[in-house]
Amino acid sequence: MQTETQIDHLDLSPQLRAAADAKDAQTLNALLDPLPYSEALRELLNLAPEERDVVLSLVSPELAAELVEEAPHEMGADLIERLEASRAVEILDEMDSDIQADLLGDMEDADAEAILSEMDAEDAADVRRLVEYDDDTAGGLMMSEVFKFSDTQTVGNVLKQLASDDEDFDRYRGQHPYIMDAQGHPVGVVSLRGLLTAKRSMPLTSIMVEPMTVDVSTSLETLDDIFNEHPFLGIPVVEADGRLVGVVLRTAVSQALLERSESETLKLQGVVGDELRSMPTWLRSKRRLAWLSANIVLNIIAASVISAYEETLTAVIAIAIFLPMVSDMSGCSGNQAVGVTMRELSLGLVRPVDAMRVWMKEISVGVINGIALGILIGIVAWIWKGQPALGLVIGLALALNTMLAVSIGGVVPLLLKRLGQDPAAASGPLLTTVTDMAGFFFVLSLATLMMPWLI
Amino acid sequence: MQTETQIDHLDLSPQLRAAADAKDAQTLNALLDPLPYSEALRELLNLAPEERDVVLSLVSPELAAELVEEAPHEMGADLIERLEASRAVEILDEMDSDIQADLLGDMEDADAEAILSEMDAEDAADVRRLVEYDDDTAGGLMMSEVFKFSDTQTVGNVLKQLASDDEDFDRYRGQHPYIMDAQGHPVGVVSLRGLLTAKRSMPLTSIMVEPMTVDVSTSLETLDDIFNEHPFLGIPVVEADGRLVGVVLRTAVSQALLERSESETLKLQGVVGDELRSMPTWLRSKRRLAWLSANIVLNIIAASVISAYEETLTAVIAIAIFLPMVSDMSGCSGNQAVGVTMRELSLGLVRPVDAMRVWMKEISVGVINGIALGILIGIVAWIWKGQPALGLVIGLALALNTMLAVSIGGVVPLLLKRLGQDPAAASGPLLTTVTDMAGFFFVLSLATLMMPWLI
Repeated sequence: MQTETQIDHLDLSPQLRAAADAKDAQTLNALLDPLPYSEALRELLNLAPEERDVVLSLVSPELAAELVEEAPHEMGADLIERLEASRAVEILDEMDSDIQADLLGDMEDADAEAILSEMDAEDAADVRRLVEYDDDTAGGLMMSEVFKFSDTQTVGNVLKQLASDDEDFDRYRGQHPYIMDAQGHPVGVVSLRGLLTAKRSMPLTSIMVEPMTVDVSTSLETLDDIFNEHPFLGIPVVEADGRLVGVVLRTAVSQALLERSESETLKLQGVVGDELRSMPTWLRSKRRLAWLSANIVLNIIAASVISAYEETLTAVIAIAIFLPMVSDMSGCSGNQAVGVTMRELSLGLVRPVDAMRVWMKEISVGVINGIALGILIGIVAWIWKGQPALGLVIGLALALNTMLAVSIGGVVPLLLKRLGQDPAAASGPLLTTVTDMAGFFFVLSLATLMMPWLI
Repeated sequence: MQTETQIDHLDLSPQLRAAADAKDAQTLNALLDPLPYSEALRELLNLAPEERDVVLSLVSPELAAELVEEAPHEMGADLIERLEASRAVEILDEMDSDIQADLLGDMEDADAEAILSEMDAEDAADVRRLVEYDDDTAGGLMMSEVFKFSDTQTVGNVLKQLASDDEDFDRYRGQHPYIMDAQGHPVGVVSLRGLLTAKRSMPLTSIMVEPMTVDVSTSLETLDDIFNEHPFLGIPVVEADGRLVGVVLRTAVSQALLERSESETLKLQGVVGDELRSMPTWLRSKRRLAWLSANIVLNIIAASVISAYEETLTAVIAIAIFLPMVSDMSGCSGNQAVGVTMRELSLGLVRPVDAMRVWMKEISVGVINGIALGILIGIVAWIWKGQPALGLVIGLALALNTMLAVSIGGVVPLLLKRLGQDPAAASGPLLTTVTDMAGFFFVLSLATLMMPWLI
């Protein structure tokens, strides 16, 4: 118990700050190296930006690279961007080319150029090429380092090269080597087990099998399907002319899926961009405000419905109590439908063309829940204000608005996707505006109709 | 373009239904087998539950297993549970033990027992043991199939066994074999490269290195840290007595992280449980209603604040227009803070003890955004109703409530986590209730104070 509490409250900031002030590289390494990377990163981000720069300039390039890789991309790019270009290159050199490209792609062009000009010319050319591909395609996810041999080699050549203990081979752990022809096309793949059990004099071409390849433009979803269906650890990526340009690892695909899921959660909550609290306040504030200001306009539109019925409201002031309740409750029902659609989209279980099918499934739940919630809130309104007609107005409005809300919540993400818009960022505000407007309209127009029984 | 549209609209339901009616196993296999599993699953889920049963009973056990594995766990369990126990066993036999355990753990006890009693006794014992572990621990994530050799064997023995082309070895693709002592403790691990380059007569013990192991209770977060720091494809899992009981694969950890992230998104949107639209309507309706009914109670509490100020409201009816706007806008600000905290929690960048630090970061954004939005909405109210005092009331209320909302949104998930509650499911409703109550209170109490200038 004692130990756990201590670990739980561990905060190295004062020690890190002191070591950074003293430019004491050894102490910084000693403090951060033993921690899991996620904890070391948390400690780093607890420091002020200038202190972070000093820490990343002083610790070993390996450790600095791990800390930057552990951070979400945008934050990682920011951490590197603030360093001297020569130090940035030292750290980037510890990373695979796909990660280098992600980081450089997230930087200001001038900063990226400064770093690229300090890099080894060949590495820089690799990275420049990788940055061009879309993030969520095989090109954007692949690394250009490939475990490969030539089709003129024998099993014995390969075993000898493996035995020479070249450090490079370590990064291919578990991957199967590809066999290349003279034009750079992948013509085969051999298993390590195949190598183990073949005679040393045999040519590689006699034990290889034809490799599966993907085009640079293959989507993340398709890659996920392929890795689900095959036990490969990586798939070679080819350009249109069939030349090998890299390999996408299974782990890169899992990582991209996880990042996409986390960024969707953020967007559904109204945070666009890759916010961490260690970013500058003005930046966080500006990004959140951008989204909120659009929302305030939508809110004003919805509120204008109330304004149109001020007479009804003055006559039956009790309605004002229930207006926010009806709009909030149906907003919640609609958000549930958004959540399920977003999930089914990410699992590949619905497509934009399935909108009608989704609506039928959604409206059946909407009718049941609308009636149930309508009766519940209707009884509450009746008892609270002693007016059966008020209960009827509020209950009926909530029932109708719930049906509308689940319809919109279920279908709108599909329509946005079809229009090429981002369903995660836009579904919520659209849903809320319509359910607010409709909720106010149902309550107030029903109340106007029922006025004789309400006053 | 033509082709893409055709694929986009592909719907095999009529053909599948016809083949299922005719009990035509061959056609079913021919229709589903060529599709990526995610598409085949979508086609399956588009059928009625009874039709799905027929399809899963007739297609090859391999294909049935892939379809079930592609579905989220709860759905997968449901698909299997509905089949004859003997058929369920045929399908489960195609899966690794960790997946078997997940599926059986999600079933009704009686159904799981019926299936276990039909299984091979040893496999059933394995699964019974695995089901006992918590889902998000090494025990719950591990499979009991392990690539292992005895410490009495030589390199030659192993190569011979590998060459014998035992189908079992295929499932260990890329993993390194563990070396076991007579008591079942993992005493070493050898790399395939080590095997390739060693003499056949050497004992395994001379080329093995000491393996890293984890305890069955190791958490998902810790496993993620370990796989981030080491290139292993799997880690052996040991009981307290040091005996090897299984291996956790890197892929199982990525999969669990992705599932957790997706289920958190759903919960933040107010969907508790693993809903897919292919589930029965009554079940989806019941689960959503459970969450909504709790919400309705919270809404009534919030609305009672309005009720307490009916006099003020009657005197200045224009306020009714702005009540939902203030509560909605601050709810949005609070949700942004919830989103960022949930993300930082999942990245391991904040811990429950960091609540004060998070609050300081959050309130600085809250002050800026509160003032900005307050001025904006204040001007709108002033111009709309021609009353500067109304602008002041609404603007000030929104500013104060925004600061409160981001404080609650940022900190509440940490407090819930500390109390052992689920922050994803409970943060939203708690936040909304408090920001509704406080929003109504700020607007109405300020209006009461300013009454002389408002009428």
